[in-house]
Amino acid sequence: MPTHRIFSDSPLGDNAARLLIEGVAPHEIILPQKRLTSILSAPEPDPAFHLADIAFGQPDLASIARSERLKWIQVSSAGFTRYDTPEFRALVKERGLIVTNSSSVYAAACAEHVFAFMLAQSRMLPQALRSQAANGSPEYFQLRADSFSLRGQSMVILGFGGIATELVKLLAPFEMKITAMRRHPRGDEGFPTVTGDDLPAALATADHVINILPDNEGSRNFINAARLAQMKRGAVFHNIGRGTTVDQAALLDALRSGQLAAAWLDVTDPEPLPAGHPLRSEPNCFITPHTAGGHANEAETMVRHFLTNFQRYLAGSPLLDRIM
Amino acid sequence: MPTHRIFSDSPLGDNAARLLIEGVAPHEIILPQKRLTSILSAPEPDPAFHLADIAFGQPDLASIARSERLKWIQVSSAGFTRYDTPEFRALVKERGLIVTNSSSVYAAACAEHVFAFMLAQSRMLPQALRSQAANGSPEYFQLRADSFSLRGQSMVILGFGGIATELVKLLAPFEMKITAMRRHPRGDEGFPTVTGDDLPAALATADHVINILPDNEGSRNFINAARLAQMKRGAVFHNIGRGTTVDQAALLDALRSGQLAAAWLDVTDPEPLPAGHPLRSEPNCFITPHTAGGHANEAETMVRHFLTNFQRYLAGSPLLDRIM
Repeated sequence: MPTHRIFSDSPLGDNAARLLIEGVAPHEIILPQKRLTSILSAPEPDPAFHLADIAFGQPDLASIARSERLKWIQVSSAGFTRYDTPEFRALVKERGLIVTNSSSVYAAACAEHVFAFMLAQSRMLPQALRSQAANGSPEYFQLRADSFSLRGQSMVILGFGGIATELVKLLAPFEMKITAMRRHPRGDEGFPTVTGDDLPAALATADHVINILPDNEGSRNFINAARLAQMKRGAVFHNIGRGTTVDQAALLDALRSGQLAAAWLDVTDPEPLPAGHPLRSEPNCFITPHTAGGHANEAETMVRHFLTNFQRYLAGSPLLDRIM
Repeated sequence: MPTHRIFSDSPLGDNAARLLIEGVAPHEIILPQKRLTSILSAPEPDPAFHLADIAFGQPDLASIARSERLKWIQVSSAGFTRYDTPEFRALVKERGLIVTNSSSVYAAACAEHVFAFMLAQSRMLPQALRSQAANGSPEYFQLRADSFSLRGQSMVILGFGGIATELVKLLAPFEMKITAMRRHPRGDEGFPTVTGDDLPAALATADHVINILPDNEGSRNFINAARLAQMKRGAVFHNIGRGTTVDQAALLDALRSGQLAAAWLDVTDPEPLPAGHPLRSEPNCFITPHTAGGHANEAETMVRHFLTNFQRYLAGSPLLDRIM
């Protein structure tokens, strides 16, 4: 059996790094000379990259293009914007590369995050947590009256994948009316899907709109003034996809006019939003700093997911989370 | 058919009041001369009360004791502290009164509220919503690492009733290990129950403790220093029962020592807690102002629940939510 060399540029920490090194042995891990601090910062070419036949992390495009040994890339994030271009897809095809991502690692945590958003909104948590209203006061009655149940409400999910699948399972007891937008519905989703053409009709009746769209040329500013106007007045908008898919000026207008009751954003453009950005002071806009996929021992989960795929790779089995 | 006279002292608003009056017709609604503003304030005797054979709301004990016609009381809240005394129970027995409450009206909303608490904690929402952390910063990694999944975690529910039943249904997809404390387990709860004797062992392994205990002589300060010490270090405590069931000084100590990771309280003693109360400034104590049961059109739901029971009463069927 040939020895595989896996270039890994993920910032892992000691435990996850040891897990990775021991998990692939006798195959070898090649570490970059300079570690990445953020999965979203642009990676730099590393002189050791050309030795690897497998890359795990966020390898830079120039190194991939120059590499003669590379066969498989596992992206360490769920998002893969920098690889989602016609040029890169052409390179992948020409060179017969396999590209997987780590969406399974983050799907459950992302689904729980947006579920937390939905329940925090329906129970008016941001307002109730800062209230000191007395029982029987007008503020008390208003908070109670503004609270609502998710049961039986309707929801549109933009972007069908691992997160949507997980979210739908978690929401099952609430018996919500769920519709997902998928570019190419397959009919095995287990609930109604629409394409872009049917989206306006679905948006017009949705109490909640969940945006899980990735960033690519087709999705940029997908949520614009026209889409926001198609939504039901008083809907709640959630974004755990990518910030670039939303026209933030139009979002602000929709919040100010009352077209949207609230927006819950885990992603923005840029990240973080500047301290003085108007969405930061908009009363019904709630922003978390891209923590939706986070969970305890995240790096270990990410490594275990790679190791699972590595065993499948060695065995010649289809890889999980294959994106190209 | 004799005409029933229903004394209703609930602050209903026009729509719900009309629904009630039309719903019982040709039977009569008797309104008090002075409306209640809060269901928790002490009701005052009303001169018209003695005409009623049914009371719906929060009738005062003196009026009930003096009444010669009264047969059935439907309390408009889920809690019924003022009626939960040996003296009142003796009166009810002696006079053959039926007493029901409105727990069905609030159970779903209470369950969703505590579920919102649990998910807000697991996704670190209070911290994440006020963070402006940059991707890749130490604060960002800390927020992600402190987030966790509810999946497979363990939970003890103190007080088994409508809210617990509803909560367990909502949590089903998370496959949590749930144990409920019930004074007299019946075996039909659908999940493990313990009595007080077995509680310490259950508390020792629970990631979440949900307190739904009502206020009565047996429950006051049930959560005291000894109980808090029985809990697993780092557990999360939730209270949607009554504030008097918790020794708040002991709770503060448990938060400060790290014995509890966090406390989420919808009820306190008193309500609201004074602005300067130390629990208000404790970083991991989160308080909503008794809004757990609230929902849109609450008064109408409460009236519909009464009307359902009124039809059952006329038909001689067993009443829902009977408590005595």
